[in-house]
This record gives sequence, C-alpha cells and structure tokens, in this order.
Amino acid sequence: MNDQGLYYADYLQLDRLLQAQQPESGKRGGAEAHDEMLFIITHQAYELWFKQILHELKSVLDLFASVPMDERKLGIIVARLERVVAIQKLINQQIGILETMTPLDFLDFRNELIPASGFQSAQFREIELRLGLRARLAPTAFSRLAADDRDRLQRIARETSLFEHIDAWLARTPFLEFEGFNFWESYRQAVAVMLETDRRSILGNPLLSSAETAQQLAELESTRRTFDRLFEPDGFRMLREQGVFQLSQASVLSALFINLYRDEPILHLPFRLLTHLMDLDEQLTAWRSGHALMVQRMLGGKIGTGGTSGHDYLRRTVEKKRIFADLYNLSTFLIPRSALPVLPSRLRRHLGFSFTGEPRV
Amino acid sequence: MNDQGLYYADYLQLDRLLQAQQPESGKRGGAEAHDEMLFIITHQAYELWFKQILHELKSVLDLFASVPMDERKLGIIVARLERVVAIQKLINQQIGILETMTPLDFLDFRNELIPASGFQSAQFREIELRLGLRARLAPTAFSRLAADDRDRLQRIARETSLFEHIDAWLARTPFLEFEGFNFWESYRQAVAVMLETDRRSILGNPLLSSAETAQQLAELESTRRTFDRLFEPDGFRMLREQGVFQLSQASVLSALFINLYRDEPILHLPFRLLTHLMDLDEQLTAWRSGHALMVQRMLGGKIGTGGTSGHDYLRRTVEKKRIFADLYNLSTFLIPRSALPVLPSRLRRHLGFSFTGEPRV
Amino acid sequence: MNDQGLYYADYLQLDRLLQAQQPESGKRGGAEAHDEMLFIITHQAYELWFKQILHELKSVLDLFASVPMDERKLGIIVARLERVVAIQKLINQQIGILETMTPLDFLDFRNELIPASGFQSAQFREIELRLGLRARLAPTAFSRLAADDRDRLQRIARETSLFEHIDAWLARTPFLEFEGFNFWESYRQAVAVMLETDRRSILGNPLLSSAETAQQLAELESTRRTFDRLFEPDGFRMLREQGVFQLSQASVLSALFINLYRDEPILHLPFRLLTHLMDLDEQLTAWRSGHALMVQRMLGGKIGTGGTSGHDYLRRTVEKKRIFADLYNLSTFLIPRSALPVLPSRLRRHLGFSFTGEPRV
Amino acid sequence: MNDQGLYYADYLQLDRLLQAQQPESGKRGGAEAHDEMLFIITHQAYELWFKQILHELKSVLDLFASVPMDERKLGIIVARLERVVAIQKLINQQIGILETMTPLDFLDFRNELIPASGFQSAQFREIELRLGLRARLAPTAFSRLAADDRDRLQRIARETSLFEHIDAWLARTPFLEFEGFNFWESYRQAVAVMLETDRRSILGNPLLSSAETAQQLAELESTRRTFDRLFEPDGFRMLREQGVFQLSQASVLSALFINLYRDEPILHLPFRLLTHLMDLDEQLTAWRSGHALMVQRMLGGKIGTGGTSGHDYLRRTVEKKRIFADLYNLSTFLIPRSALPVLPSRLRRHLGFSFTGEPRV
Repeated sequence: MNDQGLYYADYLQLDRLLQAQQPESGKRGGAEAHDEMLFIITHQAYELWFKQILHELKSVLDLFASVPMDERKLGIIVARLERVVAIQKLINQQIGILETMTPLDFLDFRNELIPASGFQSAQFREIELRLGLRARLAPTAFSRLAADDRDRLQRIARETSLFEHIDAWLARTPFLEFEGFNFWESYRQAVAVMLETDRRSILGNPLLSSAETAQQLAELESTRRTFDRLFEPDGFRMLREQGVFQLSQASVLSALFINLYRDEPILHLPFRLLTHLMDLDEQLTAWRSGHALMVQRMLGGKIGTGGTSGHDYLRRTVEKKRIFADLYNLSTFLIPRSALPVLPSRLRRHLGFSFTGEPRV
Repeated sequence: MNDQGLYYADYLQLDRLLQAQQPESGKRGGAEAHDEMLFIITHQAYELWFKQILHELKSVLDLFASVPMDERKLGIIVARLERVVAIQKLINQQIGILETMTPLDFLDFRNELIPASGFQSAQFREIELRLGLRARLAPTAFSRLAADDRDRLQRIARETSLFEHIDAWLARTPFLEFEGFNFWESYRQAVAVMLETDRRSILGNPLLSSAETAQQLAELESTRRTFDRLFEPDGFRMLREQGVFQLSQASVLSALFINLYRDEPILHLPFRLLTHLMDLDEQLTAWRSGHALMVQRMLGGKIGTGGTSGHDYLRRTVEKKRIFADLYNLSTFLIPRSALPVLPSRLRRHLGFSFTGEPRV
Repeated sequence: MNDQGLYYADYLQLDRLLQAQQPESGKRGGAEAHDEMLFIITHQAYELWFKQILHELKSVLDLFASVPMDERKLGIIVARLERVVAIQKLINQQIGILETMTPLDFLDFRNELIPASGFQSAQFREIELRLGLRARLAPTAFSRLAADDRDRLQRIARETSLFEHIDAWLARTPFLEFEGFNFWESYRQAVAVMLETDRRSILGNPLLSSAETAQQLAELESTRRTFDRLFEPDGFRMLREQGVFQLSQASVLSALFINLYRDEPILHLPFRLLTHLMDLDEQLTAWRSGHALMVQRMLGGKIGTGGTSGHDYLRRTVEKKRIFADLYNLSTFLIPRSALPVLPSRLRRHLGFSFTGEPRV
Repeated sequence: MNDQGLYYADYLQLDRLLQAQQPESGKRGGAEAHDEMLFIITHQAYELWFKQILHELKSVLDLFASVPMDERKLGIIVARLERVVAIQKLINQQIGILETMTPLDFLDFRNELIPASGFQSAQFREIELRLGLRARLAPTAFSRLAADDRDRLQRIARETSLFEHIDAWLARTPFLEFEGFNFWESYRQAVAVMLETDRRSILGNPLLSSAETAQQLAELESTRRTFDRLFEPDGFRMLREQGVFQLSQASVLSALFINLYRDEPILHLPFRLLTHLMDLDEQLTAWRSGHALMVQRMLGGKIGTGGTSGHDYLRRTVEKKRIFADLYNLSTFLIPRSALPVLPSRLRRHLGFSFTGEPRV
C-alpha cells in the first residue's frame, strides 16, 4: 500500500486481467476477427466463476472434513452452496451472449483454435470431481489435458468428494432410532396402512369395470414391491443396481426422514442442504444441455475444435452426469403428510431449540 | 361503456379471472392444501401465455398464407416471432416458481387431480401443431383429450403449419439463379477450392506423423462426401433419410444463401426470421427439459397424475420434438467468409435498397 | 367430478380464463389492434400473480396473528415470503414482454382505454396495504377506484400489516437481557472500544497531514454521535424524525442482534426472514422503476390513460414507497465480527438446539 | 503455437487470469475473509464485460466515423449494440450474486479496501464518455482516478461520442423532403386535423358537464401548444431548454419519421438502432438503481470505501445520467397510424428494395 492507499485498478489487478485477451485470428497476418474477443471474454468469465465455485466448494468440503464436524457450521455450508447455485444460474444465461455470435462469424476464427477445446477446462473437471462425478468417469477422461493438469486432477480424484461427505453425513443422522422409536419400522407400517386403504378404495369403487379394477390392483402391487425394496437390504441392492440410488441404504433413509419432517427446527438446514444439492445438479444439467444445443447451432454436424463429435457427445453425456439423482428419486418414496407416523413427543422436543422459556408472544 | 368510461377491473374481466381458481383439495371435506393455489395459478399463467403465443402464431400464419405473400410484412412477422421467443423465455423461468413447492407439499393434493395432466393442454398441442410438429406425431397423441379438443386439434393438424410455410417460402427465394450466375454451382466450386487448400496444407505440414497425415486426410475425405450429398439429389435424399434435413433441397440451399449473405440488405429480415425460428425451437426444448427435471423432482419414479411414466417420457421425447433442427444442421455446410463466392455486382445491387441518391453522409 | 374424473381444462377453468380477453379496439366498428391482446394478457398475468402473492401474504399474516404465535411456523413463513420474492422477480421480467409493443402500436388502441389505468389495480393496492404502506398514503389514494374496491381497501387498511406484525414480533425477541447480560449495554461498550481504537490509529498515523488528521477525527466524531442516537431514547426519536427508522427502538435493537448473531441456530430463520423482507422491498422498488421507465417509453410526456402525469408521478413515488427501509439502514450500525461482544456460554446454549447427545460425527 | 497446437489454458491465459485474485484481508496478518474472493471476482467479471462492451462500442464508433459512412454496415452496428444490451442484462443480474454476501460479511474486509472505490472504474467512465455522457459531467468527475487514467479519459472526452454520431446521422436522413413532399409540413397538418377532430368530439359529447368540457378543451389546447413547439425553431429551443430534447430539431424530426414509418424496408434497421439505444439506456439506468440499492443494503448510511456518501449519491445521479432520453420523449409526439400522412408512392418505392422482379410468391 502506498501513501495514497489502495487503488481500484491495483486491487483488481486490472493490468493483468485486461491484457489477458490475445486473439489468435490476427496473429499470423490475417485480419482480426471481431467476434473472437467475445469468445475469449465469455470463456474467461466462465473460468473466473469456476474459480469462485471452487472457492466455495473447497470451503464446504473442509467444513465437512473437520472431525468432529461442527454442525453449527451447517448454516454456512448451506449459504455457500446457495451462492454456488446463484452463480450457476448466471453463467447459464451467459450462453445467450455467446449466441449473439453467428455460426458464420465463428468460422472467421474457428480454425485458429484447433485443437483447443472447452473439454480442456481443468477447473470445470475439478468442479465435477469435487462434487463427486469421478466414480463414473472413464480412465481416458483427462487424456486431452496437459500433464500437470492431469496429475492435479488425478490427485483430486482421490480426495473425498461432496457426494461422499454427504453420504457419510446422512448415514450419521441421529434420531432414526430413539428410545424405542424406530423410524424405519414406523414408516414401513405407515406405508402398509396407506396401501391397504388404497386397495379397499379400489375394491369399493362401483365405477370401475372389472378390467380397470384388476389394472389398478396390479399397479398397487407394483408400488408395494417398490417400497419393499427400500426396506430390505437385498431389495435395496437391486435399487442400487438399477441405478435408482448411489447412496447407502442408511443415507437414503435419513434423507427421507429429513424430507418428511423438515418442519422440525433441527431439520431445517439439513432440508435446505438437500434442496440446494438438487438445485446445483439441475443447474449443471441445464448448463450441459444449453451447451450441447449451442454447439449444434454453431457447428451443425461438424467436428468440434477439439476433435470430438461436439453436440452429440455433449447430449449423450447430459443424463449420465447427474450426481445427486438419488435425491430426485427419493420422491418416489414420499407418502402424504396425513399418512406420516407421528413422532414421539420426547423426540420432537429433541428436534426443537433448547430455548423453552416463555414463548416470544 | 358507461358514463364513467372503462374501469380497469372490467376491462381485464377480473371478476372472471380471479374467480377461476377452484382448488380440489378443500372440496370433499378435507383441508385445503395451501400450495394448490400456486399449482393452479402457475398453470393458468401458462395457459394465458399459450393463448398469446397462438395469437401471434396465427397472425404469422395468415401473413404467410396470403397470395401473393406481401414481403413487406416480413418485418411484422419477425417482430411477432421475436415476441413469442420473449414469452417463452419468461415461461421457462416460471418453472422456478413451481419448484418453490416441495414434493411433500405436492402430495397434499396430488391425488385429487388424477387423472388430469398437463399433457391435456389443448393449447400447447395446438402450438406444436401450428409450428409443424404434426407429421411426427403418433395417431394416439390426443387420446387423452376430450372429444371436442381432439376434433379441433385434428382439424388444425390438416392446416398448413409454420414449418410448411417456411419450406415453401424458402424454396421460392429468388436470386439463386441470376443472369448466368448460379449460386449452387459457385458454392460447390468454392467448397472444392477450400477442401483442396486444406488438403495441401495437411500434406505440406512437416509436424504431422504419417499416421496423423493419413487420419486428417480421411477426415477431409469425409467432409467432402458430406458436402457432395448436399448438392446431389440422391445424396440429399440420404441426408433426409438420416434425419439431417426435413426441408426440401431447394429450401436448404436458400437457407444457406441467406445465412452466407445475410449482410445484404434484402436478406436482413430473412436471416433474422431463420434465427428466431431456432431461438423458438431452443426455448421449446428448454421448456421440455425443464419440465422433465421438475416432474422427476416432484414425483421421483412415481407415475404422473395422468398415468404416464412422467419424467422418463418427457425426457425421451425432448430430442425428437425439434421442429427446426434443419436450421441448426445447416451450420455443417457453412464455409468461411474468406472462401465465399463473390456475388456479381448487378446481383448485389438487386439485394440492396432502391434508394441510391446521394448517400446519407 | 364425472366418471372420467377431473379434466385439465375443467380444473383450470380454461373456459372462463381464455374467454376473458375482450379487446376494446374492435368493439366500435374499428379494426382490432393486434397488440391489444398482449396488453390484456400481460395485465391479466400480473393480476393472477398478484392473487398468488396475496394468498401467501394473507397466510403469513394469519400465522403472525395467532396468539401465542407459533414460532415453529417461522420456517413456513420464510418459505412463503421466499416464494413471493420469486414471483416478484418473474413479473419484473414481464415488463420486457410488454416492451415488445412499440409506442406507435400502443397508440392504435390507447384512446379506447381511457380512463382505465393500472393505478386502479385493487389487488396491487391491497398488497401495498398488507405489507404496511398505508400509513404513508394520502387520503385521496383510492379516489379513482370503484366504490366497492375502495371500501374493501379501507377495511384492509385498518387491519394489522406485515410491517406492524414484524415490529411487534421483533420487539418481543427474548435473549437481549439474559441472566445479567445486557446486549444493549455490551454492544454500546464494544462500539466505544472500536471507536477509541480508530481514534488512536488516526492519531498515530505519521502519513497524515494535520489537516487530514483533523478531518478524520471529525468524521469519527460524527460516527460516534450517530451511534449515540441509536441507544438514547431522545436520539432515537431524532432518527425516526429523520426517517432513518420507522420501527420502534426495541425492534431495531432486536433486528441488529439477529443480524450480528445470525449464525446461532435459533436466529437462522429470523435472519432469513429479515433478508427476504429486504428482497421483497427491493423487487417492489424495481417493479416501480421499471414501470416508470416503460410508461415514459410508451407515452413520452403524454398524460397516461388514467389522467395522471404517468412516468413523472411513478418516478417521484418510487423512493417514498420503501416499506422496510429500516432494515437497509440497519447496516449503518453493524460493527465487524472481531469487535462483537462475546455472548455468555449459557446464553449461547439457549440459542442452540435441544439435542446435545453425541454429535453427529 | 507449439507442436501440440493451441491449449485451452494458454489461449485464455488462465495463468494470468486465475492468479489475479489477491485478497487484501489476509495480507497483514489477519485472517482471510472468505467472501473477499467473491467481491474481487464479481468486480473482475464486471471489468471483463466492460472491456467487451468497449470493444463493441469502439467498433460502432469507427463505423459511424468513416466518411462517407457505409449504410450497408448498419446491420452490423445494430447487431453489436444488441450484443451490448445482452451483456448489460447479464451484468445487471450479477448484483444478485454480490448480494449473497451479507453486510456483516462485508465488514470483515471492508476497511482493508479504503479508499478504493467502484467510482474509480476507468472502463465504466470510458463507456459513459463514449456513449455521450461527457457534456453533463462536472469538471471534478475524474478527480479520484489515477493521473494516467484521468488523462486518457480526458482525451476520450474530446472524441466524438455515440450520441453525437447519432445526432449527425439522424440530421442527414434523406426523404424528409422529396420531390415536393415535405414530411414536416404534412405531419403538422395531420396533427392539426387530429386535434380538430378531438375538439369536435369533445364539443359534441352530451355526457360531459360544462366544467368537464372546459377542462378537456384546456388539455387539448395544451397538447396543441406542445406540438407547436416541435415545429417552430423558437419553440424547439424551449423544449431543449426544458431538457425535453438534447438532439437538434432536424434529428428529432428524423427520429420521428423513422418511428412513424418503420415498416418501410429502408427504415427497419434505423428503427432497430433507435430501439436498442433506448434499451441500452434503460439497462444502464437499471444498473445504477440496482447498485444504489445494493450499496444501501451493504452500508446503510455509512460512507462508502471511496469516501462518498454511497447510495444517496448513486440515487441522485440515476436520473441525470440518461443519455438517450430524447428517444423516450419522442413518444409525446407520435400520432396514431390512422392519422398519419400517406407517403407519395414514388417516395414509398424509394424506401423499398431495389429488387422488384416477380415477387417471391
């Protein structure tokens, strides 16, 4: 700091930042393509935001990694993930800006960029790994990255991901067994009662033809079997093999508990945490779909600058890359509030705040 | 009009509009589910905007249908399609509001709605038909709609769609043959020159191994074959069979011409028209993806209220339902401006404005 | 419900909804103005969302009004206000759709609408009243509304507004005096310590000229006086007279406490509540600014259809109509975390959850 | 380029870009404030986009500056301004991300930044100057910038701004006098006819009381006087003195002509140009309002890090800084299409395309 104190341009290092745009198109004697600047700056803005996402993500991972984890930090974790989602929403809208460049304008400088490719964004790969995508990645995933980027990513791939932290944290949820109350058992009974009520209302419905009755009973039976799988270790293994769940059975049950009793004070933040993980996944999916469409718009069936089949590849991977799909699939197993097991009052007290002096009225 | 003149509430028919929310959940003795109002109003807002989209779409179809079509109306057509896209962007963001309802809140009234389903939105089907989706629809597409809705939609399915109007309008584009200049032929030559230049630069590149040279030559050969298909009737038939194009060969060539020479004044509006058709398709695709994700979030693997498999169905259909995919695929056949055939100066004059008095300088 | 069960179009009352667009422009023999439909539907969509906002707002007011208020409902209150903000963000973007209509297109039907005006939206006035704007409204505010709308609004103006509920609820915050700990006193001391540290660092700074030293000390003195006003009843009365605060002194102190110790579990939801009230106010302000600009764009300096001076009026009122400006102004009195009084450990325990069994580790 | 060709990270200069975040908070021994990274990256993203806006703006200014100006470039000018507006919309939403930082989090590092301030963004000042804000700037406007930034801005302030180019370009519009047709005169007559019709319909309205009749006639008289000012040099001088217009009378008349006859092919692009200038101004206004609110939220009544009164200052300047307010005020002088003078058919032909071969039907 000099006598005058900090200057805006120095603080933001604008000399570096605003000198970092070096279009390829004018370099070898040709005319500079006007739109290459947009291409560079859009991608640089992505990378700046990726850095911010990683800044938040790493702090969240650190908080989960501390032993014992400080549950009082959950508010901070939730706020930081909420910020990540806000950033994702913004950068998803950036695609619209890139699309003000037309395919013909892109052709003016596209050949200069070969073989660079957005697939080489090490920060984006790092985000995917830290979130937990790694298990499903092919060994060749990083083949097109530079050696140092590749090494760093492989190191990161061995660290505990957010998915794994969440899995462990969920599995540790207390309350599911409490002084003789077993949530698992109670829930199973509640499901049985609900299905039996449904069965009777089908059988007692005079408007149904016998064929319709048979069909509705068959559907009911199918629902019953689905629920059975949730509760039985063998059944749950099947759900995992079908790809319905990646989390452990204990974690899935805990996530269900959090969803069902989210109005209890101690479950507010856990519920918001799970919600933001879904938001995050949804925005990541929207990012991939949006990019697949944009690439098709720019290149049609052409090969991308990086040599991959472009939008087809992007499109095919969109669905496979869901990280927290479990949380979506959880909705299959929700039952209406009216059918929910009532929690024992001592348990409910434990889910509330310590303060029980005179209410604030 | 009474003596006082028009009153805001009467003009907007607010008595009808604001009485049209009749939640099912409170009707049969049960408690009213708070969030059902949101569910109703969100869907009603969709339907209002669908009506507006149809208002614009029908006016555009009428303008295309007039014989001879008045090209001076192209500005109006473009402005109205631009408005449709603006509306689509808005309603795509509405999903975020519906998602403030949680799956458990939805369960509070979901059973009351069976078997009603968003698939029964006759206006949405009408939009799809008027845009041109009908050719690809299964005969059972409307099976779940009421008889009068179904009849009306089947009538509409026989009317000329926007896709068909665009196909015919493109095919009529003048200028592609002009006083001895044949765009088709010139473009083919330009492509040949470009590919030959590429071939020489591959062969002359000392950095490539012989394997790399071979591979790059093979890719070049594949590009050449793709271009050949564009120009030959038999080849073009293959492109149509592969689903690359639905438009006629003449229309595809015209669309290419418009894209390549879009800076000529007379092609400004045609170019914007094609651009907005892609925007429109892109927003429709985003709408479908967004809804597929939202349904999965609400229901998991549950069957939708209308009895369909919900999000799986939605997801599988997203890609098939592209209407103007041709315009995206066109980018495959663009060549850089530097390689473009120069238009004869008499032709260029024809593509400009009549006014040639002293320039406005 | 008939044998077939509920039909989408019946559920949403689409017959009413989609018949409720009755353009004035075609009624008296003239041509129908194409864009009047957009004008109607945009305003109807606003009114639908206003109904939804009122649905949420009224439920929030009811929850606050129950005696004793059930603090366990705070999560629901927060979620519903969050939804209101999401709706506001959406309808703020609707202005962009209305702006696809040009001023000249508006002139095609504008005269038909006189003297109807958006100022006559009774639902929007109701939202303002229920939020708490009424105290600052001129007696003539509703003069242009129909008698029954006016009567209803005057009844609503006598009910307790959200602002008043929040004021009372904040004033009831426990914890500010707790077993000998007096937050007010501790905070005042912390401020004094912080200002004294600042004073010494100014005096000890060798880089400052004596003029600069004098100026910085004067600023410091001004800061001290501002803080003094916060703590003294007479001083606080001045802050109220200056319009810095509308809330009571006890409420302002409580809101400060919530902001400063928001990481304590029991303060999470109160903090989010205050945040969403600011968001809500901010979106309302954005709505008014956006409309003022849009009206200027449509009408220039013309008189609006309702006879008011249009955008000038709108612009002048934007700032006056802030409802929760207090919460913004609160930031004036925040001090850095490092200078915050440490809460007694027994108090901190009271701010936590009841559950203190083995931590979830 | 090395043997491997271009690498993504090198192309985007990610080593510079991602090393350019140097938080102040950790530098002098204290703890690093987690949220300072967000603060830095958000502002860096702004600066990147400012660079892109300037890239577009400078190219537009160059196109306007060429002598004679090439009207065929108007399409490019319009596309680039449209892109600027798209960028502005994006960065206006960035404020929402910065607001995920709370005022208390900001206090963790705010003191470290003194006296740096967003007012020191030289690029933002450059944008304002290039658009044309300079005429209205106080001589002290740049006092807080570094000497080299200040010098550069003062040089730029002497260059021709977009506002000045637009003013000159509008004044050169041909067609307003054409083979005996004088648009000015015809328009004035059309206004007179319209006002006379209005006068008769007031006098002939049996529902009006004599007081109402008198009032409406007075309003009509006032409208007439406003229009008179438009046409008379002395009157127009008054409009300029009142701040209604900054453009010359010839430019205002041309802009009116473009708005009124925008459906003529040759006026499409000029009309879109004027529209985008308003969009641009509107987004700039939204940016300032949004920042004023955000600063109030962060700092309340505190002095900003740069020593200015923060949000009050920002708020007061929002309105003064409109650059293209003329184009909004133009709406005052539009008359309905039905009352418009019909253009001579030879003139209409001149406003169309040269191509008049068989229509594309």
